[in-house]
Amino acid sequence: MTIRTTVWGENVHEQTNEIVRSIYPDGMHATIASAIAADPTVAVSTVTLQDPEHGLTEEKLAATDVLVWWGHQAHGEVDDAVVERVARRVFEGMGLIVLHSGHFSKIFKRLMGTPCALKWREAGERERLWVINRNHPIAAGLPEYFELENEEMYGEPFSVPEPMETVFVSWFQGGEVFRSGLCYKRGAGNVFYFRPGHETYPTYHDPNVRRVLLNAVKWAYNPAAAWIGIHDAPNVPTETAPEKIEERGPKLHAPGEAGYR
Amino acid sequence: MTIRTTVWGENVHEQTNEIVRSIYPDGMHATIASAIAADPTVAVSTVTLQDPEHGLTEEKLAATDVLVWWGHQAHGEVDDAVVERVARRVFEGMGLIVLHSGHFSKIFKRLMGTPCALKWREAGERERLWVINRNHPIAAGLPEYFELENEEMYGEPFSVPEPMETVFVSWFQGGEVFRSGLCYKRGAGNVFYFRPGHETYPTYHDPNVRRVLLNAVKWAYNPAAAWIGIHDAPNVPTETAPEKIEERGPKLHAPGEAGYR
Amino acid sequence: MTIRTTVWGENVHEQTNEIVRSIYPDGMHATIASAIAADPTVAVSTVTLQDPEHGLTEEKLAATDVLVWWGHQAHGEVDDAVVERVARRVFEGMGLIVLHSGHFSKIFKRLMGTPCALKWREAGERERLWVINRNHPIAAGLPEYFELENEEMYGEPFSVPEPMETVFVSWFQGGEVFRSGLCYKRGAGNVFYFRPGHETYPTYHDPNVRRVLLNAVKWAYNPAAAWIGIHDAPNVPTETAPEKIEERGPKLHAPGEAGYR
Amino acid sequence: MTIRTTVWGENVHEQTNEIVRSIYPDGMHATIASAIAADPTVAVSTVTLQDPEHGLTEEKLAATDVLVWWGHQAHGEVDDAVVERVARRVFEGMGLIVLHSGHFSKIFKRLMGTPCALKWREAGERERLWVINRNHPIAAGLPEYFELENEEMYGEPFSVPEPMETVFVSWFQGGEVFRSGLCYKRGAGNVFYFRPGHETYPTYHDPNVRRVLLNAVKWAYNPAAAWIGIHDAPNVPTETAPEKIEERGPKLHAPGEAGYR
Repeated sequence: MTIRTTVWGENVHEQTNEIVRSIYPDGMHATIASAIAADPTVAVSTVTLQDPEHGLTEEKLAATDVLVWWGHQAHGEVDDAVVERVARRVFEGMGLIVLHSGHFSKIFKRLMGTPCALKWREAGERERLWVINRNHPIAAGLPEYFELENEEMYGEPFSVPEPMETVFVSWFQGGEVFRSGLCYKRGAGNVFYFRPGHETYPTYHDPNVRRVLLNAVKWAYNPAAAWIGIHDAPNVPTETAPEKIEERGPKLHAPGEAGYR
Repeated sequence: MTIRTTVWGENVHEQTNEIVRSIYPDGMHATIASAIAADPTVAVSTVTLQDPEHGLTEEKLAATDVLVWWGHQAHGEVDDAVVERVARRVFEGMGLIVLHSGHFSKIFKRLMGTPCALKWREAGERERLWVINRNHPIAAGLPEYFELENEEMYGEPFSVPEPMETVFVSWFQGGEVFRSGLCYKRGAGNVFYFRPGHETYPTYHDPNVRRVLLNAVKWAYNPAAAWIGIHDAPNVPTETAPEKIEERGPKLHAPGEAGYR
Repeated sequence: MTIRTTVWGENVHEQTNEIVRSIYPDGMHATIASAIAADPTVAVSTVTLQDPEHGLTEEKLAATDVLVWWGHQAHGEVDDAVVERVARRVFEGMGLIVLHSGHFSKIFKRLMGTPCALKWREAGERERLWVINRNHPIAAGLPEYFELENEEMYGEPFSVPEPMETVFVSWFQGGEVFRSGLCYKRGAGNVFYFRPGHETYPTYHDPNVRRVLLNAVKWAYNPAAAWIGIHDAPNVPTETAPEKIEERGPKLHAPGEAGYR
Repeated sequence: MTIRTTVWGENVHEQTNEIVRSIYPDGMHATIASAIAADPTVAVSTVTLQDPEHGLTEEKLAATDVLVWWGHQAHGEVDDAVVERVARRVFEGMGLIVLHSGHFSKIFKRLMGTPCALKWREAGERERLWVINRNHPIAAGLPEYFELENEEMYGEPFSVPEPMETVFVSWFQGGEVFRSGLCYKRGAGNVFYFRPGHETYPTYHDPNVRRVLLNAVKWAYNPAAAWIGIHDAPNVPTETAPEKIEERGPKLHAPGEAGYR
């Protein structure tokens, strides 16, 4: 078993902002990927917004078990058709890890079905992430809490659906709280949102954050074969019903006709 | 308190199909509305696909507490901008009841974030809806189960997110099952999906179905003032943080600048 | 409609501790009850641990729509039979509001099925409760957050099942966080856990806390008739099955025999 | 990695009923265990009600990663202290698979916190289990549905809390439905309820049922170290708070004193 993981990076601030470049000289996606590559069961590659089709071709997605997403400034530049393609692969079983400012990415909003809005403040304050679900696979190897001395604040309310499980809740020095690790399932795909990762701080160099990245990839991995049929609404002809029945009453559809979409 | 309810009808098959017209001479929306209008606390109106902006103008939605949706053949003709407008009102607190073939409506797929696909068969078979959540408000006044002698079959898997609560599960004569009454919350809005209602059968004349329609409207009603701010991601300036802090470290944003979307 | 509410008070520290008595001279239950009594749709009474059967006789519970519970020092003195009686009424539809140290009450542990443990510190520190579910009925009329200048700290992990909905998350001055308002359903009964209320501070005199108490009672109220049958496992004789079937194969039970429990 | 699995069998009807003995000559627990033993990553043993401490000593539970439970006639004979011991191990991370009539076992009711009641009929009718969560690990390798030609009927409402995930829903020939595969989490422990398995039918010899048993054990396995501390409510002294604070206001507890339980 190898978990084929693709890290998607927006790769804009790394090119345009001195601070970000100094922290992530090879791009944030490279640093994120290196955290995941630490494990022998994972094979990691990176793609960026600037690649053709943002690097997310049909072929690439078909060969991806888990996709990790970091974007911020250029959410609007991601092609809608690519977003829909990614969503389809999630429904079929690809895992998705959405990081930090990715809360406003098209793909996250597409899958949540809600605004995904929140409060924010860029003051370099202390964030303390509490593990509230201690034996969850995503918390493996973590202490009861860990701190990031400088982070952007994200504050509640975070307008997402009530999650399947909550793994982390953050405390901020300035007085706010945030549900920082949220698990969802969309079709056959496991989705995890992880809060930390503002680009002007060295968050993705932090050992605990890196452990979460790897844990999350492993958790999100669904070894089942892709659920290709999830997009279809198949007609079950009367003669193949599990129980023998006879047709009755008026009909709208001719035999073999597809349903309306 | 009056629950201002708007019933949205696609109103296509009623115009083009003799069978449907004979069962619903005034349109399905009219029959659905009459079930809800039975209660003195509800004020009902109807709009249709053919109305300007499909009847769902900003003004109409602002004056709607609960929206009931029946569509089938013409999902694709609903304007994307109107869909987004409806979604925003749901996030702010408008209730939404989605009926039967509305599982494939743009608005339901928008809010679920999943394919919302299912199996189907049009054989006029018997459906039996079991109340699995007996004291749920949507089940008020119902027996332990009720039957529809002729209905279209919808079969699992129904590719929607795991619901907040399941109220009904259906048994079909041909051998399938279906989760027929599902509760969700999206932002401040309560969303209920209710399965029955194929247009070639007199389902919306059935007393139990009509009771569910009214119960669902009452359940979905959120008396709180609209949560207008749910779409925003406000910056909290350092000087207004709940706890006094000092800014530290490098910044991406200039003071007062909006976040990226 | 009148919501018949019973406030249960342990009433021990009010009798034995000077500080508690000075804050709650008539007992904490009296102060809690006065918050709820403010609404014309609610009729409130109080009972205490010291009453015969702790005030929770069959008759009293049958006449109670919502029960509010505050206990701390004397959890172990609550009779197991009374706990089971209360649990049965919750399953049948009585609402239950569990306050603060009630997290370790027998009735809360009985309904959660988990340890319900947490961290704590009695340092009179500041607690800030964030409303993360803004238009939830329990948050009606509240600001985006409210503060209690002196409270006991409760810290995560709080070992309860993942809730149906989370309404509040608390920030503590000493650095911890806590999910402070959690909604559950047990049978037909709505259950709400609300964190604040350490007896050496005047928490139940706080206007926002008092508003939550009243809101919670209204939310927990289930107007449906008691679901008496929820405790039973009725046999459905073959001749009364919804669909006509014939018995086949070997049987364990004689006709009319009850199942094993 | 080896998943140490213990199958607990009541082992009463196998001794007292000719039909049951003829189907399960070595006991139902032996047949159940043989389904799980098929996998090289699992090590299986069996214990029964008749063993000292029902075979569930502290040592045995400490060496058990997943416990499988089948009981029916003798639920009342299971010692309360053993039930509590099992519950504690579940909270610490042991997986638990509860089968069929185990819905009324003390351990399942203890963990659910609800009556766990349902309808039933012993008529040897056909059950069809629909996989509604196709790529869930517990459904690995299954067709879209599978049938048991002769089973006892269990009908809704099943008075359990809304599950974290629903994997199977059953159709019964006599007209009922049932949520037949339900996932829960209690503390660090994964809990799965699986409906089929009436003792007068050869259900645990069915290949699909056997596949579910093995899949469920693998799903329930939590490789994390036991969460021993989940039962405790530790005091966090002011001087060790994550953020420096000073004690204020009146106190109930002396330094170092344990909290009330």
